[in-house]
Amino acid sequence: MKTEIITIGDELLIGQTINTNAAWLGQELSLIGIKVNHSSTISDEKTIIYNALSEAEKRSNLIIITGGLGPTKDDITKAILCDFFNTELVLNHEVLEDIKAFFTTRNVPFLEVNKLQAMLPKSCVVIRNKVGTASGMWFEKNEKIFISMPGVPYEMKHLMKSELLTKIKNHFSSKELYHRTIITHGKGESYLAEKVSDWENELRNIGLDLAYLPSPGIVRMRISSKNNETELVNQKVEELYSLIPDYIFGENEDTMALILGKILLEKNKTISLAESCTGGYTSHLITEIPGCSKYFEGSIICYSYDIKEKELNIPHDLLVNKGAVSQEITEILSLEVQKKYKTDCSIAISGIAGPDGGTDEKPVGTVWITVRDGEKVVSKKFNFGSNRERNIKQSAISALNLLRLLLINNS
Amino acid sequence: MKTEIITIGDELLIGQTINTNAAWLGQELSLIGIKVNHSSTISDEKTIIYNALSEAEKRSNLIIITGGLGPTKDDITKAILCDFFNTELVLNHEVLEDIKAFFTTRNVPFLEVNKLQAMLPKSCVVIRNKVGTASGMWFEKNEKIFISMPGVPYEMKHLMKSELLTKIKNHFSSKELYHRTIITHGKGESYLAEKVSDWENELRNIGLDLAYLPSPGIVRMRISSKNNETELVNQKVEELYSLIPDYIFGENEDTMALILGKILLEKNKTISLAESCTGGYTSHLITEIPGCSKYFEGSIICYSYDIKEKELNIPHDLLVNKGAVSQEITEILSLEVQKKYKTDCSIAISGIAGPDGGTDEKPVGTVWITVRDGEKVVSKKFNFGSNRERNIKQSAISALNLLRLLLINNS
Repeated sequence: MKTEIITIGDELLIGQTINTNAAWLGQELSLIGIKVNHSSTISDEKTIIYNALSEAEKRSNLIIITGGLGPTKDDITKAILCDFFNTELVLNHEVLEDIKAFFTTRNVPFLEVNKLQAMLPKSCVVIRNKVGTASGMWFEKNEKIFISMPGVPYEMKHLMKSELLTKIKNHFSSKELYHRTIITHGKGESYLAEKVSDWENELRNIGLDLAYLPSPGIVRMRISSKNNETELVNQKVEELYSLIPDYIFGENEDTMALILGKILLEKNKTISLAESCTGGYTSHLITEIPGCSKYFEGSIICYSYDIKEKELNIPHDLLVNKGAVSQEITEILSLEVQKKYKTDCSIAISGIAGPDGGTDEKPVGTVWITVRDGEKVVSKKFNFGSNRERNIKQSAISALNLLRLLLINNS
Repeated sequence: MKTEIITIGDELLIGQTINTNAAWLGQELSLIGIKVNHSSTISDEKTIIYNALSEAEKRSNLIIITGGLGPTKDDITKAILCDFFNTELVLNHEVLEDIKAFFTTRNVPFLEVNKLQAMLPKSCVVIRNKVGTASGMWFEKNEKIFISMPGVPYEMKHLMKSELLTKIKNHFSSKELYHRTIITHGKGESYLAEKVSDWENELRNIGLDLAYLPSPGIVRMRISSKNNETELVNQKVEELYSLIPDYIFGENEDTMALILGKILLEKNKTISLAESCTGGYTSHLITEIPGCSKYFEGSIICYSYDIKEKELNIPHDLLVNKGAVSQEITEILSLEVQKKYKTDCSIAISGIAGPDGGTDEKPVGTVWITVRDGEKVVSKKFNFGSNRERNIKQSAISALNLLRLLLINNS
């Protein structure tokens, strides 16, 4: 079986948007045992799209198309699909009701142009979209399956997860690819690879696969079996846990904030933060998690010297002498927010995110973090390099991890 | 002139790596007036690569290939290029010296396998790589140009910037592609499309292009000319400004926080925030911008009732009677943080992010926002729907926009 992805849109070709849809589809399909063999990005022009469909039909059994389904004039995919499958657009009343409801619940007037979104090719199976107005479409032609979805990642993912992944799996009777993804923090890809080198060789010798998936502050290690060898994968994962216990914090869809939240819930503890250089990003990671109000009280984002002094009692002389980025300061910040917000635990972060503000002694990327659990306190200095965005992200994840370690080592 | 990109690698197809190379190449090429017409990602298999080269040759004048040039066994691109261009590998002494120097300066022993990296196709122009061991290659065949580069983004970018972009521009005497991207907030794609319908028809009639690029809370509208018709594009952009003045807030790489920051700087005003449901995300958007310390003092993330009462003086009875999500509450929150943090402006946000906490009267997605500039105050109620992540993002952008409007309408 051959599978391919066609993404439509000039914004992808000229690099205004990065093609994350293709990567996401590749991942999700591989989880249901389907490997993508080809992926192409094309202009939203009639003949180009039509030709791409014809070529794909020769090459592949499953063709997944995203983009060009919006209500605006630059969205021409639907008309071309009708041409290609020799069918016509008809009004789908169920979809029309969905779209009307979509606008009603958002208090937005329903416009005549929106009705066009309910005009769909007669010959396709319609996949209803509950989070947008562009339906998914499932076509069969000469035993080939064509699926067309909107390019908005949020809507495309909804359609795949709600219905299409199951439908694809059933249609092609694909076998599940068994895998577990171990999530690590604290060391880079090459350090981990060297540390587990013998284990990795053995894993490959017995026919399993390993992939390293790095992102700022995180390296995910995916162990997979093409033949659904559950026990073999589980055994190798257990070995990995014993090889690098200090760096593993979760599996699969876990995030650092989710894991920390579970520990706080389990221990019935609350948390507050004093964030300087991270500017609210750490609190955002915590509050992304539904139900975080059970342990998260609040934070003070003490960006200026003034707020540090007046709201968190940092002595003016200390700020002047030590600078805001120092162990003394984060220890006071964390203590003060813990007292003020009456929480069991607290986190304080102060650093130089850049691009300006670095000195020889404290270059851009220098970050001090203090975490507290009751009277127990840990402080640590980091250097994350020169990129502002990465500094903020790595500081936040490192801070959450430091408190996680304090909490689990305390027990 | 037609241009295409071929990226080689299974890690891209199964989504382990996001194809950022294609986006970067698309951007850089569009800056020198070359539009990418097609982009494909293929497996690192001999016949697949060979066929992709043959197809590209029929379709395009410039073909850019990345990946498969490493020193290991799975890197097979070079051998296939020799086949395709009917040439052979020869030792390039200059490149060999480069590679030896590369290892010496890094204190890494030079291995015999590394010598293979200096074996290059006889018929190509070699583009020397100063940051890695895989050279770039420039081939000409039947007046078509083929460029092969390593897939490591850092090395690929180095080769393009140091030599290839200039060489491409000179070879094709390319004219610049001109485009402007207008960024809007407040209305969806379909509303905007209906509003500018006549203008859009006329734009297309005179040969310009328009694309709508939606993301949560934002719709970007890109107007472009294939023939570098600068004045025509500028004129249409001016017309657009007068058609939808209330929704446009910036252009090209602008973000809402960047624009608000510029206004605050210009007016020499400071800002503080009281965030409830957005949990720090709004402050994060503000502090992503380098230099924000000139106007951003700090925030209180008042997630719990307790913090709202004790730190921001919300009367207990009011919280109980009105609920945290109400105009009364965000008006007090914004006033209190403005006074406490002694800032000119302030923002307060309180809403039900979901998935839990909704009622009939206040369903998930209900959000109240108040913004202040001195004594001027504006409050507004929103409903963003049922998705937690989107609620947080849309609330944050809407809050920044509300303050932006207050500030520019005041002047």
